[in-house]
This record gives sequence, C-alpha cells and structure tokens, in this order.
Amino acid sequence: MGFLRERRSAIVETGGPPVKAAIIGTSGHIDLALEVRDRLPQVTFVGIAPGSADEDTREFFVEQLEPSMIPFYEDYHRMLDREKPQVAIVAPFFFLQSRIACECLERGIHVFVEKPMAVSFEQLDRLRRTHALGKAALCPMLPSRYHPAFHSAWRAVTDGLVGEPLLITAQKSYKLGTRHPMYTHRATYGGTIPWVAIHGIDWIHWFCGGRINNVSASHTAAGNRGHGEMESSGVCLYRLANTGCAALTFDYFRPGSAPTHGEDRIRIAGEKGVVEVADGEATLLTHGAAPRRLEKEEPLSLFQEFIRSIEEGSTMRITAEEAFAVTDLALRSREAADTRSVVALRSAT
Amino acid sequence: MGFLRERRSAIVETGGPPVKAAIIGTSGHIDLALEVRDRLPQVTFVGIAPGSADEDTREFFVEQLEPSMIPFYEDYHRMLDREKPQVAIVAPFFFLQSRIACECLERGIHVFVEKPMAVSFEQLDRLRRTHALGKAALCPMLPSRYHPAFHSAWRAVTDGLVGEPLLITAQKSYKLGTRHPMYTHRATYGGTIPWVAIHGIDWIHWFCGGRINNVSASHTAAGNRGHGEMESSGVCLYRLANTGCAALTFDYFRPGSAPTHGEDRIRIAGEKGVVEVADGEATLLTHGAAPRRLEKEEPLSLFQEFIRSIEEGSTMRITAEEAFAVTDLALRSREAADTRSVVALRSAT
Repeated sequence: MGFLRERRSAIVETGGPPVKAAIIGTSGHIDLALEVRDRLPQVTFVGIAPGSADEDTREFFVEQLEPSMIPFYEDYHRMLDREKPQVAIVAPFFFLQSRIACECLERGIHVFVEKPMAVSFEQLDRLRRTHALGKAALCPMLPSRYHPAFHSAWRAVTDGLVGEPLLITAQKSYKLGTRHPMYTHRATYGGTIPWVAIHGIDWIHWFCGGRINNVSASHTAAGNRGHGEMESSGVCLYRLANTGCAALTFDYFRPGSAPTHGEDRIRIAGEKGVVEVADGEATLLTHGAAPRRLEKEEPLSLFQEFIRSIEEGSTMRITAEEAFAVTDLALRSREAADTRSVVALRSAT
Repeated sequence: MGFLRERRSAIVETGGPPVKAAIIGTSGHIDLALEVRDRLPQVTFVGIAPGSADEDTREFFVEQLEPSMIPFYEDYHRMLDREKPQVAIVAPFFFLQSRIACECLERGIHVFVEKPMAVSFEQLDRLRRTHALGKAALCPMLPSRYHPAFHSAWRAVTDGLVGEPLLITAQKSYKLGTRHPMYTHRATYGGTIPWVAIHGIDWIHWFCGGRINNVSASHTAAGNRGHGEMESSGVCLYRLANTGCAALTFDYFRPGSAPTHGEDRIRIAGEKGVVEVADGEATLLTHGAAPRRLEKEEPLSLFQEFIRSIEEGSTMRITAEEAFAVTDLALRSREAADTRSVVALRSAT
C-alpha cells in the first residue's frame, strides 16, 4: 500500500487535468488498463461498449464495472459521440482492433489497443497512415518491456555484459483452457503467432534493436483441443543482422495444473556470457564470475506509462514506430509459417 | 563401488572371450571408452596410434596410458597388422573419422567412432556402403540416449504421457576454452552442427522416431574468440511429419565459470503435457497433476553397451542405421544453415 500511495502521489503531483477513458470491447486484456484504476485518479472511465454487435461485453460489464456506475452502450460510436473520451481502450474481436483504433485516432482519441494492432498487412498499413496524421497517440497492449526481470536482462545486454547478442532463445507457453469461438477462425483471431508469439517477437526486437534480416517459421493446429484453426504451437527462427540468430517457441500446452498461466523465458548468449530470465528472475553468467541474480526495478504499468506519455510527453519503452515494426514482424512470421518459406524483412527499425 | 562390482560381475557372467581394443587418434572423446576399463575386464587395450602424422597423440599416451604398458605406434596400419584388435576406438582429426572407420570395418574390426562419423555426404555414403558389407559392427560416440534423465523423458513421451510430441525445444551449450587448430577449419572440423548440435539432433530424432520432413537453420562464426571458421552458435528448426516442430539451439558461449562443461536441455510439449530435462533431471507436468520429477535409471555406458551388443547381439538404443540417419540429418542441417534454404530430408527413418 505504501508503494501504491507513493505512485499515486507521484501521479497527482505530475498529472494533468482529468482524463476521460472509454472501453470498446472486452475480448482482450483490458485488465491492463483497469488494474491501475486506483493509481490513476485523474483517469475516469466514462463508458463501455462492445466492439461489435456479436461480442458479449455485458457479462464483463456486470461483473467488473456495474458497481462503478459507468454507462453501458450498445454502440461504441454513440458512446464516443456522447462521452467524448480522450482515451479509448480498444479490445474487440481481434480482427476489429485496427479498424476501431483507426476510427478513434481519426477522432483525435488516444488509443490503448490490444495486440496485435492488426491481423493483416493492409490493416497495419491503414493504421500506420492514420496514426501518421498525428491527431492522437497509439499504444498496443504489449507490456513485455515493462516486466521487471526482462528489463533487467535487457539492461545487462545493452550494458554489453554478454557482448553482442548472437543467440537468443525465447519461450511463450500458455494454458489453453476453453476459448471463445472467435479464437477458432484465422479470420477473427489472426493466428497464434500474432496473438501469443508476438510478446516473444517484441523481446527479440527489443534485445537486438530490430536488426533482423529474415524469418523462417512453422506452426500447427494439431493438439488444439477442438479450437478449429487456432494454432496450438510453433517456432520462429530469426536471422539477425549481426549474423546471429533467435529461436522463439510458442504453445498452448501449459497444463492447467501449472502454477502460473504463462511461462515466459528468454536466454541471450554472446561471447562474454549468458543472461537468462525464467520464473520471473533474471540471472547473469559471465566469464570469471559466479552466476548472479540481477536486481529488478519496481513494476511499472504499461497503461500508466501511456497516460504519463500523453500527459508529460515522456518516451515509452515501446514507441508507436516500434509497435508497428513488431506487429509487422509478427505478420511476416505468420506468413513464413503459412508459406514454409524464408520471408525477408522490409526494414530493420 | 557396490554398483561397479555388480556391473563387473554381470559382464563377467555374460561376457565372451577376451576382446582386444586399439585406439586410433585421441582428438575426440575416447574417454567414453577408457572410463569403463575397470568395468570391462574382458577388454584389453593393445595399442594406441595417431590418426595422422600431424596429430599429437603422444601427450595423451604419456598422461593416460604409459603406466599401463600399452604399446604406442606411429602408424595405425602397422598397429592393426600387428595387434589384430577386434575393436578400434577411432578418434582422429574429425575429417579422418569416416576413412579410418572404413579401413577398420573392411578389416572386420568393430568400430567405436567419434561423431560425426562423416563430415560430408560422400564420406557418409562410403561408410554406409562399407558397413553394409556386414564384416563388423559400428557405433558412434553419440551417448545421448544413455543419459538417465533424457531416457526418463523419452520413456514418458513414448508412454504417451504428453501426447503426440508437437513442440520440442533443445539446447546444447558448451564452454569454448582454447581449441586445437583442427577446429578452426571447416575442412578438418566439419562444423559445429555436426560436432555439437548433433547430440540435440540425436535427441530430436529419437523423440520423434525420425519422422522429420525438412530443416531450416542458421549459424555464425561471430564471437568464436579467434577460432577461425568454427561456428560459435546457431539454431536448427525441424518440421516434423506430425505437423509439429523442433527448435535446437547450440553454442560455445557457456562461460568458463559455469559449474559444468555443457548445459543440456530438452522440453517436449504436447496436448497432454510437458516433459523437460534440465540440470540432469527430468520433470513431467500434465493436466490435473502436480509437477513430478521422473525416476532415473542407473547410468549405462555407451561403450559397454556396444561391447555387450557385439558379445551378446543385444540391440543398442542407437542402431547403426539410426546413427547414419542422425549423421545425415546433421549434414543436411549444416547445408540448410550454409545455404539459408529449407532442406528436405530424403527419408524418415
């Protein structure tokens, strides 16, 4: 609580005028925004609406928001017209994310959008062009760079402690459970590479500064327990500009009995040593020194940092440009897996 | 000691007549053969010779064998003529392994040969044809299937505990140290995929029954601390016949201060759960059950099992045919990395 109070007072000291936020869709991790309600007193939630008529947002509304007297809207356009929010939290069915994000940006509303920001290159191009109008800010729900252990590892790498990163191994493993039918169609879901692997893609992009030449990949829907087209697992192999490479595995095979929903790991190796993150801790092993657990920063909230960046102009660990690059990389990785070919990357950001 | 005595008496009980063994070259892991000297009283080492005039075998001879009065030969042909061994332990410079193995097989001498058995497809073809003459047995120094924790994991997978193996992740990480100039040239060394990654390739081949469709790969010599052409690290991506896939990373980046020379890991995931080997222990995680450490068998020696297979006709965990397939897979993986293309595999063994 002491920590929470400190954070709150820090925000109150530096915060600007009240910020009105609206929620469009509850199919993604809007908890990333809701979890900081207590810490962001200047943010008021002014409404919630489904992203499409067939999305059941009511249940979430009743469970999470009704006591707070936030109005529920059937149509988000009406909500935006009426409430005039400064920020939209956009988490509809995944294939609608980019379209609704564009609509909000065009209205000058800042957008905190579930990843992937787009499920096709066309969607991504449109979103990029709309964002380039400069009317509002855009941040995807890609909080990987704000995980304390991963940030510690990234600091170790950027401080040169392992040398040039030449071999990166990353793992994203999730519990499957029973998922909404939206997940069972590529057209509505987008694929497991853009949905799950994208966090690992974000790490890899971050650790190597986006300097990636091409990608090979593989994925399968086998073992998905009746989830239609949804891929259960796969691997992406990235060839880095420094001649090194990165391997990313992703799967929904984490048993329900496991202690946490996800199991995130990364290992970065170079001439000088190896840094690893597993079980939420970062460990460094270098020549001539015993293995050392790295100190971690206090947890930061992605949404809080987004609000801060809007209010204060501070720079986020993942910029909109980087988010576009990471999303593009996810779509190209999916293409590599679909076509079983090596896909060159347009540009190294 | 109780265990050793038991093993010895088991061998004496079942062993045949004395077996004469000769050593050709000391550039590989001939310790795999020497470590069981006490346990295999029927095996007598009758001579040692370098695999080529420029290989310094004398130092090893003086350190390891001189007290045992084993004769040293400058020329292994002369040793084979004179001592008429039944078994040859072949570990010359790597590019000579297949040639010397062929010479021994042609003489009817059983061969325990360092991996890779061949550093080119031509060498491998010749070795395969020579072995097919049926004059003698052949076993490569690929002990991976005899590591107790890996065997426990393999048993769990073949018992169906994780379901169809759909995602395999493996790691081979070694300390680099300072290596002989032989390692610094592809022509004499063969490459890090055939030398280091091959153990992981052996695991993957074993766990999926050799049903692999194709391979993509990447490797680099960057960060190799002055070791010329020797690759420091890389990744192989295997697309399995069951539509799943396997990712294998390999590197020489393990710092000298690490507690063990190598760090071997594998993770096999399927619809029913995940089994992992790390730090020499196998752990199983399945739906509805707490994580469980798997029991391990008593360690078995590859060389001892090879002698037993010669004496008793017992089947080894890695047959000569499987060893050919694993070596072929290593060479094709190297080709995939060299050419940056997807390499189809001739046959699923």
